[in-house]
Amino acid sequence: MKIIMDMYGGDNAPLAPLKGAALAVKEYGVEIVAVGDEAEMKKLCAENEISTEGFEFIDAPLVMPVCAEPTEAVKSYKESSLTVGLKALSDGVGDAYVGAGSTGAIVVAATLIVKRIKGIKRAALASVIPGLEKDYMLLDLGANVECRPEMLNQFGMMGSIYMENVEGVKNPKVALVNIGEESSKGTDLQKTAYSLMEKAGYNFVGNVEARDVPSGKVCDVAVADGWTGNIILKTIEGLGGAFGKLIKGMLLKNIFTKLSALALKGGLSEFKQKLDYTKRGGAPLLGIARPVIKAHGSSNPEAFKNAINQAKIFVETDVNATISAALLKLKEDEE
Amino acid sequence: MKIIMDMYGGDNAPLAPLKGAALAVKEYGVEIVAVGDEAEMKKLCAENEISTEGFEFIDAPLVMPVCAEPTEAVKSYKESSLTVGLKALSDGVGDAYVGAGSTGAIVVAATLIVKRIKGIKRAALASVIPGLEKDYMLLDLGANVECRPEMLNQFGMMGSIYMENVEGVKNPKVALVNIGEESSKGTDLQKTAYSLMEKAGYNFVGNVEARDVPSGKVCDVAVADGWTGNIILKTIEGLGGAFGKLIKGMLLKNIFTKLSALALKGGLSEFKQKLDYTKRGGAPLLGIARPVIKAHGSSNPEAFKNAINQAKIFVETDVNATISAALLKLKEDEE
Repeated sequence: MKIIMDMYGGDNAPLAPLKGAALAVKEYGVEIVAVGDEAEMKKLCAENEISTEGFEFIDAPLVMPVCAEPTEAVKSYKESSLTVGLKALSDGVGDAYVGAGSTGAIVVAATLIVKRIKGIKRAALASVIPGLEKDYMLLDLGANVECRPEMLNQFGMMGSIYMENVEGVKNPKVALVNIGEESSKGTDLQKTAYSLMEKAGYNFVGNVEARDVPSGKVCDVAVADGWTGNIILKTIEGLGGAFGKLIKGMLLKNIFTKLSALALKGGLSEFKQKLDYTKRGGAPLLGIARPVIKAHGSSNPEAFKNAINQAKIFVETDVNATISAALLKLKEDEE
Repeated sequence: MKIIMDMYGGDNAPLAPLKGAALAVKEYGVEIVAVGDEAEMKKLCAENEISTEGFEFIDAPLVMPVCAEPTEAVKSYKESSLTVGLKALSDGVGDAYVGAGSTGAIVVAATLIVKRIKGIKRAALASVIPGLEKDYMLLDLGANVECRPEMLNQFGMMGSIYMENVEGVKNPKVALVNIGEESSKGTDLQKTAYSLMEKAGYNFVGNVEARDVPSGKVCDVAVADGWTGNIILKTIEGLGGAFGKLIKGMLLKNIFTKLSALALKGGLSEFKQKLDYTKRGGAPLLGIARPVIKAHGSSNPEAFKNAINQAKIFVETDVNATISAALLKLKEDEE
């Protein structure tokens, strides 16, 4: 199995992606196609004793900038490591793509270069989020700010297949994010999507209110348009960070609370681990013809290693073929 | 000052609202118009030694049910304490209205019976939320699931005036909730609203991402359509509850962590107090011709007392007259 990696995406590029790739070769036996400034990568690997066993290189010294207008950027940076890597994926040089470049650019470039699975209306950015009771997938996280009902229905189907195949969740519960539990709630988008999802064939459990999303109790897949998914994800991020700061402040107040911090060490590290994104790897871009994983911008080598493993399972469990098959069924249902 | 109260709204009605009203008479010197089953209220007050000094009663024994279709309910329950109370407000029997009845019914009934301030397109449900750095207002929380740009602009203006007058925040910072900081972000709704808000005359500070809302640091007033506001509010509620449970579980694990809980008592109660909604009272319904406060369904007497005080300040600071004046200015700006 060959994983194509953009080594020049993310805050810690290229060292963290290179180290993560070397770890993955050792642990998962994958091969790596390293895309970026070949001479620099080779030099850095030698200097930092990063094994390049199992690596091949594609030279693409241009780096895609983080940009407000991804469509323009993708057009102007056709020779960047981000786009060259996706071109290689499309040409069959490797089986999957992992990169921590700008989300917007990856979504646009993957759609333009690798293209969507036939019949899929839009690719969705998904993430498996550590829930307090159980992990859950939230999608779309912002690839499609505006959605049509059929898109939400397809997101539900793709999320269900991913969770079953890659995460091993049996018959995943799929819910539609809404402002109430009744089927009559929401805007026209949610009302129509509800009626499609009800008869789609996956395990649709109805609406989920935003207050029940973060625990992961109500559903395994929470479906939303990209606007709403992005709002929920960022509210969770913001509140999580704020709570962490608050607890820390509380614990460092005086000698007694500092001692408490020691007693609580186990619980706190369990808590931290629960919310640790590095275990997860990255966010799959569902609906693209070949597996694409967007790694977090702040990924460390461990996170890149896990993103590569995630891509490997994505390929092995043949998620895309299952999506294509389910799509035929979904289409019949709609007719 | 006379506050009209629906004594039959909320989980703890009618005892909690009656007790809260009695506390408010004593502490703030207001008079109360108690709407509900007069005989029962008088009996309960006598039995529970609740002083009815400063009370007058309006007999309305029918109770508005919690319902999925507020418009229908308001039409069918014209004689309920909720609607009779709002009719009394409209007739000038009192200066403001406080009730913990169903939010949808209060929004619909207030709009139909009390009517909007002239020129206001839609009333918005607002709440001052305890932020981790500083309290902030979020609106609309769901009164208007779909919004037009001019509505968001008016929400910003009304929120700014409320925060300045009732909460004493000088020159409140107003921001538009969006999925990015650049003015080009979001759907057409946000893009157009941004351009209106920029020249509206209040202290518009640009877009705020959902991750920066919960701290309260970026803005004093976060403006969103009712769909988005509801999603953010409920994500915060859900995550807050989940974090509380997690911390509790961590502290009760063993004898050492239980001792830690003692050491942390001060910090924890400070934390709890920070998030204590009862201090706040309720959610103002901004844009209605006379002051309406929606109290939380789970309000205890203390919370009702504070909601009454909030209504009193709402009246005293003449928020509505300021809104009317600002509206003339806002209209000129749009032309």
